[in-house]
Amino acid sequence: MLWNILVMNEKLGLYTDFYELAMAEGYFCCGKKDQQASFNYFFRTNPFNGGFTVFAGLADFLELLAQFTYSESDIQYLKEQGFKPEFLEYLKDFRFSGNIISVKEGEIVFPNEPVLRVDGNIIECQLIESILLNIINFESLIATKAFRIKLVSGKQVFAEFGLRRAQGFGAIHASRAACIGGASSTSNVLAGKLFGIPVSGTMAHSWIQSFDTELEAFRSYSKVHPLNTTLLVDSYDTLKSGVPNAIIVAKEMEENGHQLKAIRLDSGDLAYLSKKARKMLDGAGLETVKIIASNQLNEHVIKTLLKDQDAAIDAFGIGTEMVTGKADAALDGVYKLTEIEGLPKMKFSENIEKNTLPSKKQLFRFLDKSGKFYRDAIALETENPAEIDVISHPVYPELNTKVKGLPFEILLSEVVKGGEILIEKQTPLDIYKFLEKRSELLPDEHKRFISPHIYKTGITQKLMQTRNNLSKQIKNQL
Amino acid sequence: MLWNILVMNEKLGLYTDFYELAMAEGYFCCGKKDQQASFNYFFRTNPFNGGFTVFAGLADFLELLAQFTYSESDIQYLKEQGFKPEFLEYLKDFRFSGNIISVKEGEIVFPNEPVLRVDGNIIECQLIESILLNIINFESLIATKAFRIKLVSGKQVFAEFGLRRAQGFGAIHASRAACIGGASSTSNVLAGKLFGIPVSGTMAHSWIQSFDTELEAFRSYSKVHPLNTTLLVDSYDTLKSGVPNAIIVAKEMEENGHQLKAIRLDSGDLAYLSKKARKMLDGAGLETVKIIASNQLNEHVIKTLLKDQDAAIDAFGIGTEMVTGKADAALDGVYKLTEIEGLPKMKFSENIEKNTLPSKKQLFRFLDKSGKFYRDAIALETENPAEIDVISHPVYPELNTKVKGLPFEILLSEVVKGGEILIEKQTPLDIYKFLEKRSELLPDEHKRFISPHIYKTGITQKLMQTRNNLSKQIKNQL
Repeated sequence: MLWNILVMNEKLGLYTDFYELAMAEGYFCCGKKDQQASFNYFFRTNPFNGGFTVFAGLADFLELLAQFTYSESDIQYLKEQGFKPEFLEYLKDFRFSGNIISVKEGEIVFPNEPVLRVDGNIIECQLIESILLNIINFESLIATKAFRIKLVSGKQVFAEFGLRRAQGFGAIHASRAACIGGASSTSNVLAGKLFGIPVSGTMAHSWIQSFDTELEAFRSYSKVHPLNTTLLVDSYDTLKSGVPNAIIVAKEMEENGHQLKAIRLDSGDLAYLSKKARKMLDGAGLETVKIIASNQLNEHVIKTLLKDQDAAIDAFGIGTEMVTGKADAALDGVYKLTEIEGLPKMKFSENIEKNTLPSKKQLFRFLDKSGKFYRDAIALETENPAEIDVISHPVYPELNTKVKGLPFEILLSEVVKGGEILIEKQTPLDIYKFLEKRSELLPDEHKRFISPHIYKTGITQKLMQTRNNLSKQIKNQL
Repeated sequence: MLWNILVMNEKLGLYTDFYELAMAEGYFCCGKKDQQASFNYFFRTNPFNGGFTVFAGLADFLELLAQFTYSESDIQYLKEQGFKPEFLEYLKDFRFSGNIISVKEGEIVFPNEPVLRVDGNIIECQLIESILLNIINFESLIATKAFRIKLVSGKQVFAEFGLRRAQGFGAIHASRAACIGGASSTSNVLAGKLFGIPVSGTMAHSWIQSFDTELEAFRSYSKVHPLNTTLLVDSYDTLKSGVPNAIIVAKEMEENGHQLKAIRLDSGDLAYLSKKARKMLDGAGLETVKIIASNQLNEHVIKTLLKDQDAAIDAFGIGTEMVTGKADAALDGVYKLTEIEGLPKMKFSENIEKNTLPSKKQLFRFLDKSGKFYRDAIALETENPAEIDVISHPVYPELNTKVKGLPFEILLSEVVKGGEILIEKQTPLDIYKFLEKRSELLPDEHKRFISPHIYKTGITQKLMQTRNNLSKQIKNQL
């Protein structure tokens, strides 16, 4: 797993923002080190102007959290940065010992929901903020992007092969998250090994060019990899040279009892070329040879290729746009203090929608008669979901919905207790299967790419009261 | 350095696309393993619709390349993927043993220029493709973004603090590249330790909220960090609460012989609030207290804040947009075979501008009378720059420029010979200083954000002849 590549020489305690350490030292020196705090992770906007977000990165984050300690050289480095000896002494034995409750990895979630909660002493809660945000923001972004692609690619599978354009070592998380979102394989062999993802790949133009002729290049490859030959047909001229040569080689392979698996189109108009190539292959009796397409694909291009243009494409290879979460490039997730020593806390903003929700909370999902997702309720953790009557928009309370009597699910469950990870390991594909089931319960209008219907999340009356009381109290102090 | 975090448990030979290994096995089995090849790295478009690109990531790539070998568990994993025993035997001892020539890290470069060249046996050249592209594409993207910010921030410094929104471990490369492009510090403590970058940071809203009052929170922080106090003033109300409380604490600090360093604005209108806050601070005799601004900044926002609105901002903190290279998220760099066993090679494309340039090449930069960058020339490596007469647009040869007699620079120099790294280690700040000097030689019209003037790179007559001959020869074969 991911920690293997980090465990030996470097611990991860420094994989944090400097201000987390400056504040931690402050808490330590102010006598607050044992104060009990609670923080929520949430994001404010679905990425890609979409109607939902796929929550991902949890297991990666937890595994890295286990390595979130300080080596001797880390302590020495912090000493050089001016941290106080007594605080450094404390850091030597630091490890996260608190509790985390979270929605499941692969769950479909929505803006402003407290999808993960960290309870612990204020120092440990603070120090882990940056790594939590770093991993979960990114993997959720990519899993969401990949699942949007899955929604339009349907039975056509797609492979992730973005390593070359991924953001440095972010490639490793990207491969994992893409598979959580529905990619069938990755080109990134290290990610394949670390996470148990199937690996795949064919050939580059350099293979073709390294031979005197395209035909010789195809023939040689098919001899080395007779059980897994996909031929890249656009090095010189797709329809005049690439496909005819692929057909020659496919016929030769048949004579030896093998089958050409696929051809790959990597440039030109994929709709036009795929239909022409399909006809040529079929005309040669090669109906079983698949057509794979790649070249700057995203969910919008795939949708138009398949739905509007009947492109004869059986599978896609997707790189840059999927692994970088283009054009958003980041999910805007944040991590906010909600309670300290039992007292509710909130942050004000000039934009009232950005005021945070105080107190330790739980998240419930109410279902409609057909069992589909209907409303999510943000509640105080002490509330009994069966007794919740009405939930309201957090800013416009007149927008409210009765949920009493509806079936419900409890979305946050314990994943770390006393610093120990409680959840079982899963492969990205296992998580995808869970996502797929959940997606069936998400009404289609939230899956639309253009102006998706907004899924409604409300707060309970008790949470609203807590929030309003605290808000008044703070305003009176100003 | 970066390899430290990777060296112990995992080697990097699997940090590659599956097809590189499939092709490598193919070359091995076809008896081509000792064929000598040459590949060029280049990109096709400047990021951010800009007029230049900052080349970065070289030292990181080279350090990782030294770890690009296969552990026993890697070999075992590849065996399970069906690779042949004789090829795996070869991989056991694999390490890159070829030569690399490159422009310097921090150099300003332009589309289609062969900014880096790898010469070696075809297997080693092929296997390292993915990691080369992964690191250099990303760091060049971020260094370019950061330098665009530097161009508008002028004497106002800016800190990078994007860890929480960076793409997973891509954060580590992003911090390095941001500093190469002009960031004065990073919040990412691990990157600070690994690369020798200054680290900085202040406090989060959680610090303020963890105290009963904002004033108490400010006071406590200033007592713990009297030499380095920056107060975040927007938790409740910037002008009614944050700034007045900061003034109280600044005065108290003065009584103890200390100085409040800065306040930080993190929401609201930064132009309006900074000017109001400046007046309040000045009115209290606190002219030395700086104002730091953050909140979704990029080069365009900073430009309008400083040039159009006279915002009273002394320094910026920049996160998401800089560390993810938003909105591009990727540089489109590629790596193409140009020669094998002394024979020139090229790839055709339906888009003639995407045809590649064959043969081992060198890159020269011609300067104008004032010593500024004038034209770049892509030449055969055997050409003497003093004898180059005219260079031409690669597609429209009628567009050409006489360069004979102009002073020139040779841009590609040896950085790896026989697998050994030849260049000295530099800090990101050292590299920035080089970039700054180079930038002074880049005419201003290429630095514009909107419709920048296109810097002209041409090919020599000899290279054109080689390309045209090869092109004819290939077309005759089709």
